[in-house]
Amino acid sequence: MKILAIESSAGPASCALAGDGRILASAGVHNGLTHSQTLIPLVDSVLKTAGVPLGEVDLLAVAAGPGSFTGVRIGVAALKGLAFVQDKPCVGVSTLAAMAHTADGIPFEGVVCAAMDARCRQVYTALFSCEGGNLARLTPDEALPLEELEKRLLSCNKSIFLVGDGAELCYNTFSARVPGLVLAPPHLRFQQASGVAAQAALERDKAVSAEKLQPIYLRLPQAERELRARQGASGTR
Amino acid sequence: MKILAIESSAGPASCALAGDGRILASAGVHNGLTHSQTLIPLVDSVLKTAGVPLGEVDLLAVAAGPGSFTGVRIGVAALKGLAFVQDKPCVGVSTLAAMAHTADGIPFEGVVCAAMDARCRQVYTALFSCEGGNLARLTPDEALPLEELEKRLLSCNKSIFLVGDGAELCYNTFSARVPGLVLAPPHLRFQQASGVAAQAALERDKAVSAEKLQPIYLRLPQAERELRARQGASGTR
Repeated sequence: MKILAIESSAGPASCALAGDGRILASAGVHNGLTHSQTLIPLVDSVLKTAGVPLGEVDLLAVAAGPGSFTGVRIGVAALKGLAFVQDKPCVGVSTLAAMAHTADGIPFEGVVCAAMDARCRQVYTALFSCEGGNLARLTPDEALPLEELEKRLLSCNKSIFLVGDGAELCYNTFSARVPGLVLAPPHLRFQQASGVAAQAALERDKAVSAEKLQPIYLRLPQAERELRARQGASGTR
Repeated sequence: MKILAIESSAGPASCALAGDGRILASAGVHNGLTHSQTLIPLVDSVLKTAGVPLGEVDLLAVAAGPGSFTGVRIGVAALKGLAFVQDKPCVGVSTLAAMAHTADGIPFEGVVCAAMDARCRQVYTALFSCEGGNLARLTPDEALPLEELEKRLLSCNKSIFLVGDGAELCYNTFSARVPGLVLAPPHLRFQQASGVAAQAALERDKAVSAEKLQPIYLRLPQAERELRARQGASGTR
């Protein structure tokens, strides 16, 4: 089974083609250019260097959120386009579950904390146990204030491997008070399409058609949050 | 400083562009196609997706060996071509030192054993200590019989993290007798151009011009070994 996966939920963008239980080809960029410029060229180069036409791909996968609203929308929209023209099944996986796969099989026992910077002193986060190289989800995907995540990590009483674009923010905020924090090194820290492919392989029975694929936002966009706050404040809700 | 690095010493081929202490763009393929088909398109896609022309690259780097004779020759020749047309400095790093960088910063204390399958029950190998996330070389690059490497690892008395395309061969051969072996998971096991870039950053003062860049073979090619054996056997040497 060949899975084409894309990741554009935060700063980096990447694409991976998985098959026969391994990554056949991958490409990524982390240079500040917008995903609307980089994502489709990445997909194109992955398929070309692998020598696999899109028609031979069995499943299309995307990190469907949580994440940057723009990044998630670009990723989901790009995948819908690819899936629609070829009538391929799609699966949208949790960005946090996908990034936790960076800890697959590493010599670490404890808790993997996937964290994305959601701005406003909040993180998108989920916790996974990591025992004997195997991951298991402990908490659902949530948008949490940093202080709330700190309380949870304090109650873990285990080593905690921090991954994601919010890992460094968490490390810098918590490390004086939460023992056992390990900041993932840069080559394991950031979200990668290979993790999306790994999670999609586990969720392939949830595949849907292109038109049914939906982003996972967790929070309302800032403009809507501000509108609702104003409406609430002026009693017009 | 921008470093463009390529890796084609074994089955996978990859290219990475490093700058500002991180990987700006990368691409890799591991699908059995020959590097002579895949390597230059990988370089092209990395520079294009990064939006960085070759002229803006400060240093060109390659995994110069040990490794597959054909793979090493393709990588070194490709880099010479790129460097020659732009008159850029080049550095050829040890394939084994480059692949050990996969252990940079991971939560592991012990010895990193980089191993490539050199056929004929031999491996190209080097050992590195890994303490507090920092690597330091313990042994030079060598071509060793598997039995010899097994003796060395037995005398380590430490956890041993096996990386490289020969890691699985070593794990399967030694694991019943050598305690503390950890086989790197697939996403950390195979050589990657990002490791070549990391090693090149440490060796940038050894940069040479394109015509002076040399592959590192460690062993004579099989045809020459057989010729010398025949010449030795027939007394014509």
